[in-house]
Amino acid sequence: MKRRIGILTAGGDCPGLNAAIRGVARAAYETFDAEIIGILDGYRGLIEGEFRLMRKQDFSGILTLGGTILGSSRRPFREMRLLGDDNVDKVAAMKKTYEDLKLDCLVTLGGNGTHKTANLLSEEGLNVIGLPKTIDNDIYGTDFTFGFHTACEIATDVIDRLHTTAASHGRVIVVEIMGNKAGWLTLYSGMAGGADAILLPEIPYDIEKVAEVMESRARNNKAFSIIAVAEGAMDKKEAKLKRKEREAARKDAGFHGIAYRIAEQLQELAGVEARAVVPGHIQRGGTPCAYDRVLSTQFGVHAADLIKKDKYGYTVALVGNEIVHNKLSEVAGISKLVPEDHQMVDLARNIGISFGD
Amino acid sequence: MKRRIGILTAGGDCPGLNAAIRGVARAAYETFDAEIIGILDGYRGLIEGEFRLMRKQDFSGILTLGGTILGSSRRPFREMRLLGDDNVDKVAAMKKTYEDLKLDCLVTLGGNGTHKTANLLSEEGLNVIGLPKTIDNDIYGTDFTFGFHTACEIATDVIDRLHTTAASHGRVIVVEIMGNKAGWLTLYSGMAGGADAILLPEIPYDIEKVAEVMESRARNNKAFSIIAVAEGAMDKKEAKLKRKEREAARKDAGFHGIAYRIAEQLQELAGVEARAVVPGHIQRGGTPCAYDRVLSTQFGVHAADLIKKDKYGYTVALVGNEIVHNKLSEVAGISKLVPEDHQMVDLARNIGISFGD
Amino acid sequence: MKRRIGILTAGGDCPGLNAAIRGVARAAYETFDAEIIGILDGYRGLIEGEFRLMRKQDFSGILTLGGTILGSSRRPFREMRLLGDDNVDKVAAMKKTYEDLKLDCLVTLGGNGTHKTANLLSEEGLNVIGLPKTIDNDIYGTDFTFGFHTACEIATDVIDRLHTTAASHGRVIVVEIMGNKAGWLTLYSGMAGGADAILLPEIPYDIEKVAEVMESRARNNKAFSIIAVAEGAMDKKEAKLKRKEREAARKDAGFHGIAYRIAEQLQELAGVEARAVVPGHIQRGGTPCAYDRVLSTQFGVHAADLIKKDKYGYTVALVGNEIVHNKLSEVAGISKLVPEDHQMVDLARNIGISFGD
Amino acid sequence: MKRRIGILTAGGDCPGLNAAIRGVARAAYETFDAEIIGILDGYRGLIEGEFRLMRKQDFSGILTLGGTILGSSRRPFREMRLLGDDNVDKVAAMKKTYEDLKLDCLVTLGGNGTHKTANLLSEEGLNVIGLPKTIDNDIYGTDFTFGFHTACEIATDVIDRLHTTAASHGRVIVVEIMGNKAGWLTLYSGMAGGADAILLPEIPYDIEKVAEVMESRARNNKAFSIIAVAEGAMDKKEAKLKRKEREAARKDAGFHGIAYRIAEQLQELAGVEARAVVPGHIQRGGTPCAYDRVLSTQFGVHAADLIKKDKYGYTVALVGNEIVHNKLSEVAGISKLVPEDHQMVDLARNIGISFGD
Repeated sequence: MKRRIGILTAGGDCPGLNAAIRGVARAAYETFDAEIIGILDGYRGLIEGEFRLMRKQDFSGILTLGGTILGSSRRPFREMRLLGDDNVDKVAAMKKTYEDLKLDCLVTLGGNGTHKTANLLSEEGLNVIGLPKTIDNDIYGTDFTFGFHTACEIATDVIDRLHTTAASHGRVIVVEIMGNKAGWLTLYSGMAGGADAILLPEIPYDIEKVAEVMESRARNNKAFSIIAVAEGAMDKKEAKLKRKEREAARKDAGFHGIAYRIAEQLQELAGVEARAVVPGHIQRGGTPCAYDRVLSTQFGVHAADLIKKDKYGYTVALVGNEIVHNKLSEVAGISKLVPEDHQMVDLARNIGISFGD
Repeated sequence: MKRRIGILTAGGDCPGLNAAIRGVARAAYETFDAEIIGILDGYRGLIEGEFRLMRKQDFSGILTLGGTILGSSRRPFREMRLLGDDNVDKVAAMKKTYEDLKLDCLVTLGGNGTHKTANLLSEEGLNVIGLPKTIDNDIYGTDFTFGFHTACEIATDVIDRLHTTAASHGRVIVVEIMGNKAGWLTLYSGMAGGADAILLPEIPYDIEKVAEVMESRARNNKAFSIIAVAEGAMDKKEAKLKRKEREAARKDAGFHGIAYRIAEQLQELAGVEARAVVPGHIQRGGTPCAYDRVLSTQFGVHAADLIKKDKYGYTVALVGNEIVHNKLSEVAGISKLVPEDHQMVDLARNIGISFGD
Repeated sequence: MKRRIGILTAGGDCPGLNAAIRGVARAAYETFDAEIIGILDGYRGLIEGEFRLMRKQDFSGILTLGGTILGSSRRPFREMRLLGDDNVDKVAAMKKTYEDLKLDCLVTLGGNGTHKTANLLSEEGLNVIGLPKTIDNDIYGTDFTFGFHTACEIATDVIDRLHTTAASHGRVIVVEIMGNKAGWLTLYSGMAGGADAILLPEIPYDIEKVAEVMESRARNNKAFSIIAVAEGAMDKKEAKLKRKEREAARKDAGFHGIAYRIAEQLQELAGVEARAVVPGHIQRGGTPCAYDRVLSTQFGVHAADLIKKDKYGYTVALVGNEIVHNKLSEVAGISKLVPEDHQMVDLARNIGISFGD
Repeated sequence: MKRRIGILTAGGDCPGLNAAIRGVARAAYETFDAEIIGILDGYRGLIEGEFRLMRKQDFSGILTLGGTILGSSRRPFREMRLLGDDNVDKVAAMKKTYEDLKLDCLVTLGGNGTHKTANLLSEEGLNVIGLPKTIDNDIYGTDFTFGFHTACEIATDVIDRLHTTAASHGRVIVVEIMGNKAGWLTLYSGMAGGADAILLPEIPYDIEKVAEVMESRARNNKAFSIIAVAEGAMDKKEAKLKRKEREAARKDAGFHGIAYRIAEQLQELAGVEARAVVPGHIQRGGTPCAYDRVLSTQFGVHAADLIKKDKYGYTVALVGNEIVHNKLSEVAGISKLVPEDHQMVDLARNIGISFGD
């Protein structure tokens, strides 16, 4: 059995991409006669026909490496428009590259946007397998995506470091965690870092309720607090607006990030000294943690197994402890958000963590 | 509702003990009228009546702290004999302390030995709840114990560091990972660290097969190898012996640890330069990783919830993504070992990792 | 010999404060008859008479602890005005507390502002010893302050993580490192992190020269760059303005941090995709690195030795490998900035790092 | 000006080798017309004529990389005999390779053994420059070697992790730190890790004095202790023996490492529960810390500067904060040991740390 496999990584980079690529490659080389072609810079490489013939040794020593050896789209915002007006031509270009390269299948590593396109290509008749990477953990059908736990470890380490400053100065520190629509990373790292309040996109907050948390802590002689806020969090009034209205209102108010706004508001409302910290991209860089290396490898090997069985149109997933696969068509276009009554949310409330609601 | 809760940590220390203690305490204080008594040094404190009245602030700032604020048995090997001759007196002493302290229930954090004793006390009529901690991950009925993933991260970091030495010198490095009966930690950290061979207690190895791995790599111009070996691994001949026979044979042969023996054998058999590294106790120390902080907290909060519902005789567990509880009687005395056909073992074989069998 | 020692930590927190406090205390208890009084929240505690009698065990287990067990001034910006109008009363209040507590001497841990006040108190006749802490490394007369190397390790780790993102996406990342007046931290961590350009407050930059670096790298097929910029960096035009003028001009231009501005400018000038990252307070939190633990301890023990010899009016310093002491009067009020022809600057230029000048 | 530079790394690997290689290369390419030839596997490559023509991009991305991209001697023990019987032939072979490759100079990165050979080659007329790497910090004439501070950070992290186990179990933990002749690494990491006793090769210990430390701590209600012991430490009786006698006596006594022996002795003498931990090679692996990246780069750039000036027969050094160079002939063959009255030793005694003497 011989298979010519194209592989690409799209969207924002994330720890574990190389580990997953290595997993696909090692299992493919080990279990059948595989030829692997690296498509460069995500779908851009597929559209423009930029690629690299991979050799066995190219996958050596990359397990621990952050980022992606294949590059990701330089201008990912363009990809967002993939399904827009010039869609037809781009899809045609991708199909052409696929055919020119005589690929038997295409493995795409990415998040929700990537899965949408993967599904589109699958519907066009290409043999596609998706691998769910994202530090946001918002891909439907999998308990965890790879990259998420590494981002959790980094964000938790950040909160740990802020704790000593907050405690020494009796300050409130508002730390902005990545996550525009989904609050998973804020929820997990807020729990792990011992945050006093956790503000998620899914649970709009009331700033006065947040201020009360600070005041209640102050009454118990705790002069400092840590607030973990997702970058996409919004207050209850904003939550009622449409996205464009909200953005316009924020622009008018000179908005420069949710953490800064909350810190300012708390200084006024609670009379505390508050600081904002926005660790940003460091949450998605560097070597994957052990958990993500194992998960990425599992995902990669499962993808190779699907190829071996000629099963296409799926994306790999973790359900409980099992590695499984879901239909791309059932996953694409759906974001997995934090349900308001999620077990972890209840649990956080039970130990006195406020969601500001 | 008012509950007087005794809490103890027994057996070897492990990251997440304090996080779990904090989880129990914070949820108990938050959701009912709780009084908490810390039993010192594990079951020894229960036998000898040594304890400490805990205040709310004692549980503050301990989420990130390694070890256990309650102390663990100083001489845990004595505990192993708890079920032996002097059993009756010890159980009587423990019951007396429980009654003298007017406890409503007892929360025990520990591994397999601890769970045995917990079940014994439960059968004697005490209200007991177990929390499964161990870096070995060998407790029946839970997918993961807390402490395991932190140990994995540490062991993986150890293997990463050894990789650079191995590669620079073209050496074989045999790293001994904790785990006497169960190979989970070796399996996961070996995978995450990119080991070339993984030797587990559950899968007896043949040293000549291991040597072949080195030779095959040498033929592919890879002069170095990493072998992850569980401290309880044994070769096929040893596996046929009874434990006492094996220990006697090893003593006769001047055995000083499995990693040293394997390194010596490989030097002879494969003509390579081999070194043994035994990181030992560092695998169980220090601050818990984010994953374990979340899991420990979940376990602790679930225990508080069981107390609130007066449900005793259970140990808390993770099944898939759900926090559940199992009967102590169904868990105590059973070790969860790595099945030879475990998904992770198959997967490792599929990427060319040898188990030396 | 008996000494009653007051000790306080002022200004921003910084790794190693507790290690230094422990050094003073352990050496004092070990080598003479010492009584130690912890003044709370920096000079505020000295002004308002808030303190804590310390016991030997209070200094146990704090070597590794970030922040300060004594607290630092909650509103340090008020301290900046210590030498202003209400100066007289504050000094009188501090002298009164010193006398009421029957102190033999006062040890102050802090940066430049703290040293100014320490010198003032010394001139007023109090027995004062300074210990130079700051992540900025800008205290005159010492090669290194404690806290600096830890901040370096953290900032370098941040740059490492950003590297993988920059490389995967072919992006320019502008990372803002702490340091308003002094660029030491940016210089060292920029070197250690492999930055392509380093922008310091001491060497005004020309944004077009910075853009050229990106373009020159692009011509050599390096699509990504890392720029380490000190928060107090300014361009050549700004450098000619007085501070107030500069601040006014920035306000008018909607300035929100130097890294954001540079990223925007580079997008325009060099046609690259650029991102700003502002790690902020995480650079000063958490456990001190080994280097700083040793240095802090050395400084603390040296301070205790000065007390033993009744030598006051000094601040402890590192010169080469020797721990020495300088007169407070010769150090206070002077900032140690990066000279334009510093050995490290030359060296950086010699390996092709641009300072944008 | 044109120079053809040979470069090799010899002896055990150590963090910072690649950073130093990069420093030489980048400064050479930047400041003159350089051609660089990588000699493989240390002096072995020079003897056997194995090398690699390096390109500019080979030095890209290696700043953070542990180990050495040039490989180090696979069997370093053979090198030890370089100055023995077959010396003449080996030196002739090295000179021949040097001439065949038309080298203008040779840069050797290594420890004391490497420097001996470097000096020998220099005396034979080759243009040699040494760079002092070793985690032992035992090279004469430099305050610090690169690799040392990274090893310190790792060893300190190891001690931190052991602390939680020691404290939770009321145990004594004896941790063996690398260093056969020189105790620098044990001294620094013991100080940084808060060890209660530090045992160095340079200060023979009396086991009963060490036991007294444990007992004295027990009287002060501190049930646990950490002892940092250099692998080359010896007790006072052993110190009187010649090396061969000592080794014979140890062999007879079934010696398996100093930490194990001390742990056993303390169990008997002090009635404590003691454990040995031997972290071994992990102390020299992995990415260099920020301090070492800067130092390695400084050393490398200084070496390139010497080449530019045609100054040979030197080894680069750090004295205070200056990068300088010493004559190879004045450095080779001398080990820099810890003087018994070193400032750090006095300081450690002043905070109650015992040296067991």
